[in-house]
Amino acid sequence: MTPPVTTVPYPAPVHTALAAARSAQRPARNTRAGDRARQLRTAADALDAAADTLIPVAQRETRLTEARLRGELARTTFQARLFADRLEQGAFLDARIDHADADWPMGPRPDIRRTHLPLGPVLVFAASNFPFAFSVFGGDTVSALAAGCPVVVKAHPGHPELSVLTARTVTEALTAAGAPQGLLSLVEGQEAGVAAVQDSRIKAVGFTGSTHGGRALFDLAARRPDPIPFYGELGSTNPVVVTPSGWRERGLEIAEGFADSYSLGSGQFCTQPGVVFVPDATDFAAAVPAVAPGPMLNERIHDAYRESLRELSSRPDVGTAARAEGRQDGPEAVLLRTDAQAVLADPSLISTEVFGPATLLVEYESLDEVVRVLDASGGSLTGSVHGGEAPDADALTLLDALAERVGRVLWNEWPTGVTVSDAQQHGGPWPATTAPTTTSVGTAAIHRFLRPVAYQNVPVAGLPAELRY
Amino acid sequence: MTPPVTTVPYPAPVHTALAAARSAQRPARNTRAGDRARQLRTAADALDAAADTLIPVAQRETRLTEARLRGELARTTFQARLFADRLEQGAFLDARIDHADADWPMGPRPDIRRTHLPLGPVLVFAASNFPFAFSVFGGDTVSALAAGCPVVVKAHPGHPELSVLTARTVTEALTAAGAPQGLLSLVEGQEAGVAAVQDSRIKAVGFTGSTHGGRALFDLAARRPDPIPFYGELGSTNPVVVTPSGWRERGLEIAEGFADSYSLGSGQFCTQPGVVFVPDATDFAAAVPAVAPGPMLNERIHDAYRESLRELSSRPDVGTAARAEGRQDGPEAVLLRTDAQAVLADPSLISTEVFGPATLLVEYESLDEVVRVLDASGGSLTGSVHGGEAPDADALTLLDALAERVGRVLWNEWPTGVTVSDAQQHGGPWPATTAPTTTSVGTAAIHRFLRPVAYQNVPVAGLPAELRY
Repeated sequence: MTPPVTTVPYPAPVHTALAAARSAQRPARNTRAGDRARQLRTAADALDAAADTLIPVAQRETRLTEARLRGELARTTFQARLFADRLEQGAFLDARIDHADADWPMGPRPDIRRTHLPLGPVLVFAASNFPFAFSVFGGDTVSALAAGCPVVVKAHPGHPELSVLTARTVTEALTAAGAPQGLLSLVEGQEAGVAAVQDSRIKAVGFTGSTHGGRALFDLAARRPDPIPFYGELGSTNPVVVTPSGWRERGLEIAEGFADSYSLGSGQFCTQPGVVFVPDATDFAAAVPAVAPGPMLNERIHDAYRESLRELSSRPDVGTAARAEGRQDGPEAVLLRTDAQAVLADPSLISTEVFGPATLLVEYESLDEVVRVLDASGGSLTGSVHGGEAPDADALTLLDALAERVGRVLWNEWPTGVTVSDAQQHGGPWPATTAPTTTSVGTAAIHRFLRPVAYQNVPVAGLPAELRY
Repeated sequence: MTPPVTTVPYPAPVHTALAAARSAQRPARNTRAGDRARQLRTAADALDAAADTLIPVAQRETRLTEARLRGELARTTFQARLFADRLEQGAFLDARIDHADADWPMGPRPDIRRTHLPLGPVLVFAASNFPFAFSVFGGDTVSALAAGCPVVVKAHPGHPELSVLTARTVTEALTAAGAPQGLLSLVEGQEAGVAAVQDSRIKAVGFTGSTHGGRALFDLAARRPDPIPFYGELGSTNPVVVTPSGWRERGLEIAEGFADSYSLGSGQFCTQPGVVFVPDATDFAAAVPAVAPGPMLNERIHDAYRESLRELSSRPDVGTAARAEGRQDGPEAVLLRTDAQAVLADPSLISTEVFGPATLLVEYESLDEVVRVLDASGGSLTGSVHGGEAPDADALTLLDALAERVGRVLWNEWPTGVTVSDAQQHGGPWPATTAPTTTSVGTAAIHRFLRPVAYQNVPVAGLPAELRY
């Protein structure tokens, strides 16, 4: 066995971090679920206690508001405690016990008992837009730690100082709570990330970011001599359909709700409603209240927003329905417009994610046309229908068509604001994610990092506790 | 929506099969679980009723014995009925309901309800060595059908006539039971398989076969513009450790059990014990009774067996411990030998699968040495420990080391003979499979073909039945 690694700096050289993760692998697996829960809670408490130190750094590095960041930190520590609760309940084990059965119809059956073990060291790529909730101690990290996997986090360059502070705070708390040395470490830089994805000690990858970057890393993971699971959350345009009866009965409410949702956090959310199908784009755009988004995370992201807006608005059959200058330090909020026939001719129009406060309005003649467009489109994280007070037959058809290609279907609500709970699903078919059978938010996220193992004819002394029946 | 496909020949041109699967996608998803169960049972009954037609064809095409083939057919139809049972119990849904909660600690929570929907059309590559249980209506197919996915089977060229007969029998039964047209179809030839893996209508692939062929198809799936899950079961050497106390207390029993297991079905099983760690290779080989395996599936496989034996036995530090000429029409049964130090120097020695009745004996000095070898080795489907009557500390250490790299851990039993049940696990880290978090045998296999979907604030009329609470 590898000797335990005792000192891991923040950030660590990638080879130190990988050695640390490998050396923590067996101790992490042998840490009882109740102890893992206690460690996660200790780390969550330490982060909450450090809020007054962390928040100003986060504000400076991300330009997000204090209120937003305090809310995000609360979400982040709540998330860790929710995994702790579920660990203590044994909720994630799916333990199955088949006692020996001489009369089993296909022939005598031995005693077989199945549980789940951690997959091994996990590499997590932090995201830019959630410096707490999808970063060093975000959902990927805590679900991997809950599963019993050591974690190497590749820091996001958008908030380097916050990443180091978070890693230090969490690691000191984990260690104080008895966690193995090397359970969590932090690396910086693209080169380190690229090396770690390909290192045989890494057994799975969690990623949240752009389709372009995610695809490149997915390809590296798939091309390894020993390919590993790559759980990537990439691009999503989150289609919303406003039905004719919805527009008639709830038009004002829909337009106001939309204004809040598409501009929330300056549109820097993976569930931002990027495509909205409406019966009349002129009327819709006129009804949407003006918004003034705050500054984007950094200038690089602001530039990328301008560039992708320019690209999308230069396509044939795409025009501008409304634009708002907004604040001096913030991005312009833009409503583009096209129609369903143009999208049927070029489905890529509605799969191009514009990261920022812009939405493409798609005017339709009939809901049949919308269903045809949806059937021709790629996957998304969410899909929403805004109808009247109760769903009519058209609305039911739309909900059904959306369920075939998204991870979360919404009725008369907006997709931004992703709660953390047992029933949450944050995933979807390509390009929303690289792993359509999984989720990266909610307690089911732990299953990405667990591997089923069956024990045949193994006496009690050799069985994990949950199989000793 | 695509118009329903009414006539699908056996085998079908690949474009016909893909169009049929696409056209069956929505009807298959909308088929209630209870109806899917009835369809699977009807197909199983039809196969059982056709046994006297199917078995002679299978004998001629695979050279397997009538007894073996009748047993395998019974296993195959039992498997379909077990999935039918679980469908009727709703066992696969993992339905989760979070009612709205204004006091949720991270902020007010909407009503969110999560269930699982079918992934869409599945491509199944049939295996050579189980012409029923891992072929046209084998585990991959029935778990995908149970999930509500249409299936396109790429027939194995080793039993083409049986494949067509099975497809016809099953499809006629499915149709008679009300299944959608195009739910199951059969294609032939490598070109068709390669085209189908890359077709956007296919949403997942199941594969059982060689590491070489599986890797090539995995790469095609990963390189698609829209990558899809590839569930491949590739190579496995299934390490077995005979401990010193096991050899002392149960030596004869172990040697006899081993002789049966390594030569069963002429060694043509993915769980064949290909590597056995023993305290003394000379003594062990001397104690193993002579075996006379029946003919291999076909001459191509027999030739490949001779070639891989030749390759492995020509490696430095590999010698021959025993060989048995066997029957005139069967392969030679061979015990090769090496030692733990040689394997530590070249771990590939124990990851090279020899498909046939051959095993590499690895002589060890100490069990510490064995643990070091296991820690350096790749994944396998199974790992077994043969010890004394009860596991001592050494045995527990070995079971633990094996659990880290295999899907099924056995104590004092042999890995061949894979029962179908709820607790069964048939999978493991690379190169055993391409998807370490899944199983291809047992009822949990259905999860490969299901996708979680959450419904937020959706009224009862728009919810799947299992979420109407």
